[in-house]
Amino acid sequence: MTITEVVQMQGHLIDSGMLSRALDDILGAGADYEIQNLLFGKTKNDESTARIYISHPDQTAMNDLLVRLQNHGVNPVETSDAELVPAPMDGVFPEGFHSSTNFETFVRLDGQWISVQNPEMDCGLVLRDGGVTTVPMSDVEAGEPVVIGFLGVKVVVPPPPRPASESIFEFMNSVVSSEKPQALQVRQIADQMRDCKAAGKRILWVGGPAIVHTGGSPALSALVEAGYVDVLFGGNALATHDIEANMYGTSLGIDLSKGSGVEHGHENHIRAINRVRAHGTIAAAVEAGVITGGLMHALVKADKPFVLVGSVRDDGPLPDVYADVIEGQRAMRAELKDVGFAIMVATMLHAIATGNILPASVPLVCVDINPSTVTKLADRGSAQAQGVVTDIGLFLEQLAFELVGRTS
Amino acid sequence: MTITEVVQMQGHLIDSGMLSRALDDILGAGADYEIQNLLFGKTKNDESTARIYISHPDQTAMNDLLVRLQNHGVNPVETSDAELVPAPMDGVFPEGFHSSTNFETFVRLDGQWISVQNPEMDCGLVLRDGGVTTVPMSDVEAGEPVVIGFLGVKVVVPPPPRPASESIFEFMNSVVSSEKPQALQVRQIADQMRDCKAAGKRILWVGGPAIVHTGGSPALSALVEAGYVDVLFGGNALATHDIEANMYGTSLGIDLSKGSGVEHGHENHIRAINRVRAHGTIAAAVEAGVITGGLMHALVKADKPFVLVGSVRDDGPLPDVYADVIEGQRAMRAELKDVGFAIMVATMLHAIATGNILPASVPLVCVDINPSTVTKLADRGSAQAQGVVTDIGLFLEQLAFELVGRTS
Amino acid sequence: MTITEVVQMQGHLIDSGMLSRALDDILGAGADYEIQNLLFGKTKNDESTARIYISHPDQTAMNDLLVRLQNHGVNPVETSDAELVPAPMDGVFPEGFHSSTNFETFVRLDGQWISVQNPEMDCGLVLRDGGVTTVPMSDVEAGEPVVIGFLGVKVVVPPPPRPASESIFEFMNSVVSSEKPQALQVRQIADQMRDCKAAGKRILWVGGPAIVHTGGSPALSALVEAGYVDVLFGGNALATHDIEANMYGTSLGIDLSKGSGVEHGHENHIRAINRVRAHGTIAAAVEAGVITGGLMHALVKADKPFVLVGSVRDDGPLPDVYADVIEGQRAMRAELKDVGFAIMVATMLHAIATGNILPASVPLVCVDINPSTVTKLADRGSAQAQGVVTDIGLFLEQLAFELVGRTS
Amino acid sequence: MTITEVVQMQGHLIDSGMLSRALDDILGAGADYEIQNLLFGKTKNDESTARIYISHPDQTAMNDLLVRLQNHGVNPVETSDAELVPAPMDGVFPEGFHSSTNFETFVRLDGQWISVQNPEMDCGLVLRDGGVTTVPMSDVEAGEPVVIGFLGVKVVVPPPPRPASESIFEFMNSVVSSEKPQALQVRQIADQMRDCKAAGKRILWVGGPAIVHTGGSPALSALVEAGYVDVLFGGNALATHDIEANMYGTSLGIDLSKGSGVEHGHENHIRAINRVRAHGTIAAAVEAGVITGGLMHALVKADKPFVLVGSVRDDGPLPDVYADVIEGQRAMRAELKDVGFAIMVATMLHAIATGNILPASVPLVCVDINPSTVTKLADRGSAQAQGVVTDIGLFLEQLAFELVGRTS
Repeated sequence: MTITEVVQMQGHLIDSGMLSRALDDILGAGADYEIQNLLFGKTKNDESTARIYISHPDQTAMNDLLVRLQNHGVNPVETSDAELVPAPMDGVFPEGFHSSTNFETFVRLDGQWISVQNPEMDCGLVLRDGGVTTVPMSDVEAGEPVVIGFLGVKVVVPPPPRPASESIFEFMNSVVSSEKPQALQVRQIADQMRDCKAAGKRILWVGGPAIVHTGGSPALSALVEAGYVDVLFGGNALATHDIEANMYGTSLGIDLSKGSGVEHGHENHIRAINRVRAHGTIAAAVEAGVITGGLMHALVKADKPFVLVGSVRDDGPLPDVYADVIEGQRAMRAELKDVGFAIMVATMLHAIATGNILPASVPLVCVDINPSTVTKLADRGSAQAQGVVTDIGLFLEQLAFELVGRTS
Repeated sequence: MTITEVVQMQGHLIDSGMLSRALDDILGAGADYEIQNLLFGKTKNDESTARIYISHPDQTAMNDLLVRLQNHGVNPVETSDAELVPAPMDGVFPEGFHSSTNFETFVRLDGQWISVQNPEMDCGLVLRDGGVTTVPMSDVEAGEPVVIGFLGVKVVVPPPPRPASESIFEFMNSVVSSEKPQALQVRQIADQMRDCKAAGKRILWVGGPAIVHTGGSPALSALVEAGYVDVLFGGNALATHDIEANMYGTSLGIDLSKGSGVEHGHENHIRAINRVRAHGTIAAAVEAGVITGGLMHALVKADKPFVLVGSVRDDGPLPDVYADVIEGQRAMRAELKDVGFAIMVATMLHAIATGNILPASVPLVCVDINPSTVTKLADRGSAQAQGVVTDIGLFLEQLAFELVGRTS
Repeated sequence: MTITEVVQMQGHLIDSGMLSRALDDILGAGADYEIQNLLFGKTKNDESTARIYISHPDQTAMNDLLVRLQNHGVNPVETSDAELVPAPMDGVFPEGFHSSTNFETFVRLDGQWISVQNPEMDCGLVLRDGGVTTVPMSDVEAGEPVVIGFLGVKVVVPPPPRPASESIFEFMNSVVSSEKPQALQVRQIADQMRDCKAAGKRILWVGGPAIVHTGGSPALSALVEAGYVDVLFGGNALATHDIEANMYGTSLGIDLSKGSGVEHGHENHIRAINRVRAHGTIAAAVEAGVITGGLMHALVKADKPFVLVGSVRDDGPLPDVYADVIEGQRAMRAELKDVGFAIMVATMLHAIATGNILPASVPLVCVDINPSTVTKLADRGSAQAQGVVTDIGLFLEQLAFELVGRTS
Repeated sequence: MTITEVVQMQGHLIDSGMLSRALDDILGAGADYEIQNLLFGKTKNDESTARIYISHPDQTAMNDLLVRLQNHGVNPVETSDAELVPAPMDGVFPEGFHSSTNFETFVRLDGQWISVQNPEMDCGLVLRDGGVTTVPMSDVEAGEPVVIGFLGVKVVVPPPPRPASESIFEFMNSVVSSEKPQALQVRQIADQMRDCKAAGKRILWVGGPAIVHTGGSPALSALVEAGYVDVLFGGNALATHDIEANMYGTSLGIDLSKGSGVEHGHENHIRAINRVRAHGTIAAAVEAGVITGGLMHALVKADKPFVLVGSVRDDGPLPDVYADVIEGQRAMRAELKDVGFAIMVATMLHAIATGNILPASVPLVCVDINPSTVTKLADRGSAQAQGVVTDIGLFLEQLAFELVGRTS
């Protein structure tokens, strides 16, 4: 069975984005649409009108969709008087009550559209004192007539403010949030990685030193061994703290097995760098048995390339690090061939640097505990960036668990 | 003089938002448009095509606009072969060079559209080895032919990923940023407040205790006296620290004139509350001369209403504070009449509470040093919220300077 | 075998905290100490001197400790000329090189203490041009004499700036960081919970709605069933989104099994509240089969108490929620009996509220993805608060895995 | 007149930091002290005891100090029975009531020390049901006896948890906060700068591009002209956006005079770089009249040196930028001579890089809207760093106003 409905909308549908949002809602709900009629305003002063034919196999989902569309100012063409049901108890609305928006709203009673007083979100629409008014749930009285469903209700949404010379404020359409089911996100990234490998493409990782500080290094090393890291970009700090952890069991002076230590006064990292410099390259230090485990060791053993590019705050640096950042960019570009998926973990500097040189056609996931890293990346042109705000150590452990089984 | 140009675009123009973004770019550049032809895809699988006639009085601005549109996949209808100019020096492009995007790009040479290799942002398009390739500025060699301008260049922008069941990641269209010219924002808020008063409407302030901690209380008090605060919503903390500052010169135990002190061990705030409770109301304490200055004093003296609603973390509370939050909501609703502008400063809890009950038709500015307060407000339905990320104390000082002259 | 060493220090040892930091370093390194001589300055203008006898079973650890102490201005009593070893290669220091601090430093050569030029962190001390100077690793030349170890080196640490009337800046001794090995932290919290239960004490949880949004609800419900949640404090939002997730599969309108949906336009939460209000209490709704799973269901079924206290931004609220916050505080106090461990997850408001009423003797862990929640809690007097900055959903999953085996 | 008092303390006074905190409190209150007796525990298992003689000219300040000390477990030697005063009204304590801590507390009645039930912060100590119990302000009843002042009260503070192998959690002693009176901080930084210049020393600035984005460039340029910027360290972005702003009136594509524009699609910055590269150096571009204003122009005109060091994410870069970061470090070191004050504004990368090479003896202020920049700097060894969390544009405007009069 297929449920169908026709809705209409009017206003600055195209330049305000209303129409594309409505279609987005429709597709997001699993429905199909056909635009039956679109009279578009030719100039910025002309309004447009649209009629959209919607179909969905499920009545409940269709109702939910119609409510959502109505809340965005898209109202059914065929309507009727609003249905009123008395509140069953003080402080309780009848089931199926219309939950209000904070936009201008009208309710049809006896064929007349009545304006709702005091538009307020998440209230009921109650017939009171001869009019229709928003009433918060806690204030409704038993027996008061309350509007049910979406029929006989019309919501008028004004166009969003356009960024013009008289307004400097931006509109916030969406944000990167830590309030997402992260376990689910991990599974989906694992799927993307499997798909990339199945397509014969390479996976590019870009990483910062928090991978080591948060204890994520064993998990990432396991992913190297299992073939999910084809090339790694990073800086001096990532490799240094990884090697420090292997040589001394610490990262920035913190004992990784106990979590205790002091933030500074440490010097293990500078000793680690010195020792590797004496061998000439990280690979040589691995071969000499000076580095016996960790991420860099795993990369060398698996014969996977890495590009480390320095920054002005570096100590040392390690011998493999490009001190010349322009040469470093060239080395990074040379490793982009056949990259089919990129993941950036706990680094803003190298993430933006990689975003700068990566074609927009490569899917890109950015993982950080700080939402601003993700948004900065997108702001700087990597519009395809997908953000995950989560804990790095736990994220890598879960990802390794999904892809290669538990590792720690 | 009016410069005109016709551009075309093809793809999922409406449901991807491409068309509305293009119109936004056009209006944002100060140009006018007329949609000449829009063949819209009726279903989600159909592509749309559009031709847009653009006019602008200024040639340079028109060129800038055409470049921007091209970067978004909107290309001129009339084009020609690309113009090539040799690089004047090693590492320098010719003036007017085409700055590349990371999207699939084509360059027309001898009537043929050639695909650009290695799409990368902010490079030049250089004729090299018989093809056209992106070259970073530092790598171009003197004499190499470089594409100039937008003619003969075509950028193909894929539709943005649609949030569908197989993808859980959100797209980031824009963010609230602290990297804005704040002095300008202050001036524009001052204008909105003047307009609100000129229209005979009331200005609603919602504030948190950081107003006091950051030294912004004198500036806000000056705004009360000058008539720019018609009603204030807040909690126990704002009023308590304001009164503490007046009685003891401290806020949370910090000496406001010296900035020194300790965070806890203080107890001035609880003594301040006790003293006001003994008088029964804040107004009574003002009348009794127990409170001699500060924000609450200014409100009482100017006979401006305030609604203080408590929270579970409150000490005391002050006698005017609603301990019952539902009664507090009712008191807030009762003060919304004729509010024509709302400004929320340094409070997430009361900002969201006010957003919940405010009609969408009331312009609303949210000021906080933490961007997440602003985005949370918009997420919770107050889509009209405009965000300003800045320092509270300095913001209030500048606003008072704009509206009533320097106050401190 | 026991290694012993005598160190000395001089200056404002007590009021600057130098002495306590030194003893902290000693104990932190697993060493023992005996203060042999402490001449304390009686007034703020008098310097103190101390000699400390240190013993440790391990020579390497002792050397590390002595280096650390020296970096903090605590120098060995017995010293000698500095040992110099030539750099083995350009850009490489000899093994065991002294890694410099940015404090004033002296090196003893031929019995004379020579001042080191250009104090800079993480450099070598190199004999060059007749003096001793800091040289960065990359600038040392093969054959240059480099100081080894700590003998013959003296570091003079100035007292830290005291917060006085002429300075308003705070000193930062330590911070809450997300850069910690989180898996380890989870295990240690699991141990604390087991110890609490073994001691016959109760575990108090304080939670925010991000528990539900991040998919952590099944894990926490498993902990309820296993007896690791004796009482829960929270607000309307936690219970509402938990019940919404059970009734509709969404949280704030987001489909928890797919991660997709829209932030607003949803109304499931308000319908969920309405339905529970019709039953009178959450427990009644559970008994009536209206709530069939989730955290609140688990608490009701396990007969564990919860206290929900409202806030001014609440919709509804749920019938169990205290609208009067002072009554809510009383209800919370009444549940503190025999609490031996408290954990606060993803809530600032209720965490601070609980911190306000909790004796300092109850260990308290605060878990949040935002470091400022943890620091605010400590600032407001809950000095015993231990902070974990991590992802809520993954944290709860890992904790449940540790305590009751994997749950999702 | 001088008020004197003798207090005593017992416990792990030195290694827990209790003694240094107490002396800190005493000096912070403007009092003098003399340690009369200090029996120090020689080993980590021994307790220490101390008696401290305190003097202060002001009785009220002395009382406040004694209350604060008592809250930290430092109790007067001479005491008496607690004084009890009946509560004057329901919900109101008598003036001077003892405000409780959440530590174990005793009250002396009839010569006996009675343990206080339910230690809780910010309550009164009330004689009820034959014992002494904490009572929240809202719950006290008229006539109930309430403890006044600090005599007859003893607070026992346990040692703070020491970071040992079984605990990985850090203690938070203090934090960098945006909740400070910023106008005051600006004035104090202005004083430090004047003092530095008066002493014939140089002021070092380290800056990030947000100086330009936030509209702070004119203010900083005015400071250059007035002689308060002797040398500037930064990266490619700061200089590029400054020059872009001068050439095109935009910063990252944002029109600085209107605040509107789009985040990407812009290419003014890359054109600005290209134009300067064609002239060979920034100074040459200034001399050629290609750069006519802004920060870099002001530096060139005032003949002040700057060191720009590149990073891997740079476009271009500008011709003056060091692409080799190790050479860049050397150039920075060469400019440290005679620096007497350093200020770092809106940059984490270059701030840490500068902190790495700066002697600890140079006072250093770090200004950022993001608190984590400041704490990261201190974590990495620049313990002298003083943090100011504020808006960059407003900060620079206020600082210029203090030092050279209003500039915009």
